[in-house]
Amino acid sequence: MEPLDYHAEERSKASFDVEEMKIVWAGSRHAFEISDRAARLVASDPVFRKDNRTMLSRKELFKDTLRKTAHAVKRTIELNLSEEETHTLWFYVDQPAYANLHWGMFIPAIEGQGTEKQKQKWLPMAHNMQIIGCYAQTELGHGSNVQGLETTATFDPQTDEFVIHSPTLTSSKWWPGGLGKVSTHAVVYARLRTDGQDYGVHGFIVQLRSLDDHFPLPGITVGDIGMKFGSGAYNSMDNGLLRFDHVRIPRNQMLMRLSQVTREGKYVQSDVPRQLVYGTMVYVRQIIVSEASCALSRAVCIATRYSAVRRQFGSENGGPETQVINYKTQQSRLFPLLASAYAFRFVGEWMKWLYTDVSKRLQANDFSTLPEVHACAAGLKSITTSATADAIEECRKLCGGHGYLSCSGLPELFAVYIPNCTYEGDNIVMLLQVARFLMKTISRLVSGKMPIGTAAYLGRVEHLMQCHCEVQRAEDWLKHSIILEAFEARSARMSVACAESLSRFSTPEEGFGEISADLVEAAVAHCQLIIVSKFIEKLQQDIPGKGVKTQLENLCNVYALSLLHKHLGDFVSTGCITPKQGALANEQLRSLYSQVRPNAIALVDAFNHTDHYLGSVLGCYDGNVYQKLYEEAWKSPLNDTVVPDGYDEYIRPLLKQHFRTARL
Amino acid sequence: MEPLDYHAEERSKASFDVEEMKIVWAGSRHAFEISDRAARLVASDPVFRKDNRTMLSRKELFKDTLRKTAHAVKRTIELNLSEEETHTLWFYVDQPAYANLHWGMFIPAIEGQGTEKQKQKWLPMAHNMQIIGCYAQTELGHGSNVQGLETTATFDPQTDEFVIHSPTLTSSKWWPGGLGKVSTHAVVYARLRTDGQDYGVHGFIVQLRSLDDHFPLPGITVGDIGMKFGSGAYNSMDNGLLRFDHVRIPRNQMLMRLSQVTREGKYVQSDVPRQLVYGTMVYVRQIIVSEASCALSRAVCIATRYSAVRRQFGSENGGPETQVINYKTQQSRLFPLLASAYAFRFVGEWMKWLYTDVSKRLQANDFSTLPEVHACAAGLKSITTSATADAIEECRKLCGGHGYLSCSGLPELFAVYIPNCTYEGDNIVMLLQVARFLMKTISRLVSGKMPIGTAAYLGRVEHLMQCHCEVQRAEDWLKHSIILEAFEARSARMSVACAESLSRFSTPEEGFGEISADLVEAAVAHCQLIIVSKFIEKLQQDIPGKGVKTQLENLCNVYALSLLHKHLGDFVSTGCITPKQGALANEQLRSLYSQVRPNAIALVDAFNHTDHYLGSVLGCYDGNVYQKLYEEAWKSPLNDTVVPDGYDEYIRPLLKQHFRTARL
Repeated sequence: MEPLDYHAEERSKASFDVEEMKIVWAGSRHAFEISDRAARLVASDPVFRKDNRTMLSRKELFKDTLRKTAHAVKRTIELNLSEEETHTLWFYVDQPAYANLHWGMFIPAIEGQGTEKQKQKWLPMAHNMQIIGCYAQTELGHGSNVQGLETTATFDPQTDEFVIHSPTLTSSKWWPGGLGKVSTHAVVYARLRTDGQDYGVHGFIVQLRSLDDHFPLPGITVGDIGMKFGSGAYNSMDNGLLRFDHVRIPRNQMLMRLSQVTREGKYVQSDVPRQLVYGTMVYVRQIIVSEASCALSRAVCIATRYSAVRRQFGSENGGPETQVINYKTQQSRLFPLLASAYAFRFVGEWMKWLYTDVSKRLQANDFSTLPEVHACAAGLKSITTSATADAIEECRKLCGGHGYLSCSGLPELFAVYIPNCTYEGDNIVMLLQVARFLMKTISRLVSGKMPIGTAAYLGRVEHLMQCHCEVQRAEDWLKHSIILEAFEARSARMSVACAESLSRFSTPEEGFGEISADLVEAAVAHCQLIIVSKFIEKLQQDIPGKGVKTQLENLCNVYALSLLHKHLGDFVSTGCITPKQGALANEQLRSLYSQVRPNAIALVDAFNHTDHYLGSVLGCYDGNVYQKLYEEAWKSPLNDTVVPDGYDEYIRPLLKQHFRTARL
Repeated sequence: MEPLDYHAEERSKASFDVEEMKIVWAGSRHAFEISDRAARLVASDPVFRKDNRTMLSRKELFKDTLRKTAHAVKRTIELNLSEEETHTLWFYVDQPAYANLHWGMFIPAIEGQGTEKQKQKWLPMAHNMQIIGCYAQTELGHGSNVQGLETTATFDPQTDEFVIHSPTLTSSKWWPGGLGKVSTHAVVYARLRTDGQDYGVHGFIVQLRSLDDHFPLPGITVGDIGMKFGSGAYNSMDNGLLRFDHVRIPRNQMLMRLSQVTREGKYVQSDVPRQLVYGTMVYVRQIIVSEASCALSRAVCIATRYSAVRRQFGSENGGPETQVINYKTQQSRLFPLLASAYAFRFVGEWMKWLYTDVSKRLQANDFSTLPEVHACAAGLKSITTSATADAIEECRKLCGGHGYLSCSGLPELFAVYIPNCTYEGDNIVMLLQVARFLMKTISRLVSGKMPIGTAAYLGRVEHLMQCHCEVQRAEDWLKHSIILEAFEARSARMSVACAESLSRFSTPEEGFGEISADLVEAAVAHCQLIIVSKFIEKLQQDIPGKGVKTQLENLCNVYALSLLHKHLGDFVSTGCITPKQGALANEQLRSLYSQVRPNAIALVDAFNHTDHYLGSVLGCYDGNVYQKLYEEAWKSPLNDTVVPDGYDEYIRPLLKQHFRTARL
């Protein structure tokens, strides 16, 4: 018997090779195979089930995380997985856990900031998980501004120790994942004081809990910071608080690669270039951008599949109602998100190259590309994560009422995703950094300093300030060169307008504060241009597979033109395009939606998401949505009994008028 | 000793009379007093505490709802509260419960659709809560399109009964609040079949559970539909599913005010005008708009207060960092939401008048205003609830990382609010209805039919199509007449453009489908104009109190100009304003923010929200945020023990390398 497939007809309509598109999405055949195997491994293992996650109490959920983590470690050892495979397996377990911080922050901090001797001492224990660490930077009163941290590390030359202390309530470490209940160690960021001076924030390895009985060591107060957004989601993580009451650590637990404190208490800078930290930053942000495409593709997959199952209105002569995916209102909200998923995927892929390139340069002491690379990574982190957060919620709305059920998977996906907009650089702060870079780039043009990389177009600012868009018919909007120039002109003109505004203030700082909202908009325009241009570059590569390139062409155009429509005010008010050309773009967009429509299901199939990873009844591969919703409902804890707990105390007395007779 | 108040300085900076503003916000002194008393009553009653709500398991939460509901009923009887007071008390209990549906949907359905005889029989029992009812309309496969419902009610002339039946899986009733575990009765919507014909969807009173033991009656399958978005939030409600297996009810349980089935099975329409249902619809939507202003004001109050407490960057010479509310990026995101709260409040107030007016007309068989009133209520419901949902999440982001903690109150507020965008008319479907009305209004202009009420401006369409905005300096944007004309022109031109597009299609229906995304945008423009114009009308009233009117003037301008900036593409591409005028509006907006800034805390104090109602550590009245965050953290269930449950099984073996030695 054929397996049930409500989407079979949709799948048969696709005009491209889905299997080839899967390779394009994954990045390579190798990446596809690793990912496919890990996804199936996790999906088939009952320990990793997550369908009941939103019903668990906090304690049950946390214990479930501990169990999954231990099981994952066990499986990676048993299966002798490579580092890449291990990483992919953790990804598909899809439950925030202390191990993410141990591997993703604690170990890299020691690798990046520790001396060779320190690495030799700490890394083997950490890799074996004989110690478990977290990254204790943010404080109750201090987030984005690292220089504002209050925790102190005061050197005591008498004992050759640092005294770590929390001098105020607001200096309590707050938020570090894995800190609350699990970590035995932490890299703690504190103000270094020695020799009567404050040398600013440095990292220290501090043991927090006994390795015998897991109790906090003397002077250490540590705990969980409480419930977070949503059910399930980040509540699986023990984000923690931490206070120090004059806790002493040996001097050699200061991370000393970049600077040291000598036995005598003298502060000495090493000759290791500080710029090396930027490499790590680009690496982390590249991962965040890649993960944005994962989260977004998941939401889009759910909404697209369910939009093909769900029918509403439009029944003719008692026939079935219309699939909601056929409505232009649905398409105009959904397809730009589908296109964004691909766009973010490709820009994330490009960032991998960017990281390799910058790493090589740093090795060679070439710091020339750093400002541009830094602005680029900050900006892309910001706009891909903001757009993804909004898109997940939009996908939920696109699923109508049922999107509000936990079993749609979308509420938890939203709740677990949104911290991306805050951590590793608040998204607005990031855009202001991009804006600073843009203003600096423009101010240097007069002295003939040519911008490079993603800012190179600003070297053609004179042309971009006066060029005219050549679109005369809707189809003209399909030309890459026309799209690119419109986006370049918009970005250049917005930046130049900001630069001109700034010059009217008495100091640049005052101006920067005053017009910061405009600067943010200019930064967004610049970053959107980067994504559009990297999508176009991708299309200039050789892309095999029947019809694959055509689909990507369509999606690239949908991405660019839907942005243009959304930000029409930018394009028209800077004179980059005329209102008429804006209307033609909109017309072209509608016709692109019609071309995407028959391929929509296949385009989300190409993400190769398992039902386990999707975690959504609405998005299930076979489309048997209503049967599954019905079965899911009966798992509700309230359905454990026919008559609910509380009936005798609180319902029956009402029905029997007991309150009324008691008093009246 | 003076009570602690970290906001004292902020409060002293206000240049208006906060107490008078409270009256303006409440609508009248009477409304203020009722509301103030009920809020304090609830806040001071330990049964109504909600600070632990997000930590409860589903069953505990549900039992807590049952307890609060019974307690609220008891208190209203003991205190002999009026209907208005009772309603306000329920509002402040602030936890979705079956009682909302009993009082808000079940009883009104019988009142509106029952005959006098039916009302006499059922309403006294319902008012005494001897029976508890819900409103069973939507089905698993059918939401917005009521005519698509599948449940059948077939008349059996042999027994003088209707047979209620669920013929398919998708016909299962799905979502009704209070259905899952509590309701003893329901108004069930089903297709009436008699005399060999299908007469479409009608309402029937059906008993679901035994009044003795609360067990479902024979033929009835009923249960909870499962977990929903967020922790706490709507999980306090037993949204339910319901299936009928040939359940028989007496003929007189069909709601027969509008049409009847005779003893012989003949279907007879009564002479009661069907249009009466529109009155109820306007009433319900007016309440939704009012509640949008409540939810929005709550989020804005939290974000504003915390933005004055929180400091980040900008420390000079080691002094304190800058309050984040002083950043223009923060102001440009926050103050438009503050202005929206006031705008929605006043348009909600105006809708009360609209409801009274339409009710009077319906009594007098005057249906002339119905299409306009219906479009207006649908549109305002849609855009105020969509804007509020987005704004709550934006406020959460404005609180930085701590907004992600449940104790910020914002995650639960978001989760509990968003169903407003779906129920009582999906927001996109609503906007399409507005668009239909606008297209009809424009098509009738040629035959000289003058539009009325909120559409009256379309009667001046010729002028609006060619008028020029007169703004030359930023301050010109402060003139009401200029703002109003810009919004009228934008809306009129977008509608006319849609009408012209439609005329190019072979049938209007085809065109309507094809350009529906544009139609939605035109509808939004129309609805935003209504809100702006009602805010301006409010300012033409006499408003007492020192400085109160000035503040409202500022907020009105912030509301209008921030919308103009956000939708700049509409205004510029339709030629309503020039790019230069758009830039001047933006400049004026910045200066308005500076005027709002010193009054911001007082403007949110004027909402008169108690700390209990706010339910937010970040938004607490005294601003003692960090102390409260710290105390709140220790309530985390994970902090019940020092060493977490699961340590022995899943952490210790890792640290002790037990997995490794077992296998390697």
